[in-house]
Amino acid sequence: MRRAVAADLSRIVAMLSDDPLGQGRESGLVDATYRNAFESIDRDPSHYLAVADRGGEVIGTLQLSFLPGLARHGMWRAQIEAVRVAREARGEGIGRFMFDWAIDKARAQGCGLVQLTSDAERTGAHEFYDRLGFKPSHVGYKLQL
Amino acid sequence: MRRAVAADLSRIVAMLSDDPLGQGRESGLVDATYRNAFESIDRDPSHYLAVADRGGEVIGTLQLSFLPGLARHGMWRAQIEAVRVAREARGEGIGRFMFDWAIDKARAQGCGLVQLTSDAERTGAHEFYDRLGFKPSHVGYKLQL
Repeated sequence: MRRAVAADLSRIVAMLSDDPLGQGRESGLVDATYRNAFESIDRDPSHYLAVADRGGEVIGTLQLSFLPGLARHGMWRAQIEAVRVAREARGEGIGRFMFDWAIDKARAQGCGLVQLTSDAERTGAHEFYDRLGFKPSHVGYKLQL
Repeated sequence: MRRAVAADLSRIVAMLSDDPLGQGRESGLVDATYRNAFESIDRDPSHYLAVADRGGEVIGTLQLSFLPGLARHGMWRAQIEAVRVAREARGEGIGRFMFDWAIDKARAQGCGLVQLTSDAERTGAHEFYDRLGFKPSHVGYKLQL
């Protein structure tokens, strides 16, 4: 796992798009909107856009964010968003590898909790999170603006 | 609604504690852990710890965070955490007032989505989020470290 660089952007966007839910939400092309978002993530040390790099080939991505909060006795949280494993690398334990890395990094940053939300339709992902020890204790609400 | 200041901290922590779930998670006392968390939130413009102030009396709080991401075509998200209305001010529409403010602020910041998670046990809160137009489309996973 390493920090994503600008040259990884088209590969990451392709992975975000190559997904039943992502298809309708992403444009496959890397335009200024994606580039601006990448720069906002990259310049803020609270966010770590990571890629799984196997011999120079990017086969997975996730975004890890470290968020302060007062609740739970001032506990820092790590939040994981935009998780994808490249289609050709699925079923090889890459997701597990990426999450082990992310959880270790969260712990090293002093976080007391790792949180994420997963679309209710992603039942395969839910089994994966259950196996990692995550508890589906919350309802994830979204409001489109 | 206004930005919380250090002098509000004991009142905010009291509101976080005065809650069926918060009781077991918060200590009522404002110690260094809470103060450090407050400072981390306060110095980062990505986070806005807000209080509802009615004539000098703080009767509600929430934390609003603005998070960049590549997914959904590089869409910024606003995330809401640690929502409380003071016990003596419930049933007066304060929650609605706070959320109208937060949603307006998210829109003004260029966010395309407002997101939050709510403990599955908070069924009253879920009706409230439904009424505001939030969709319970996701499962919220937490892993304690």
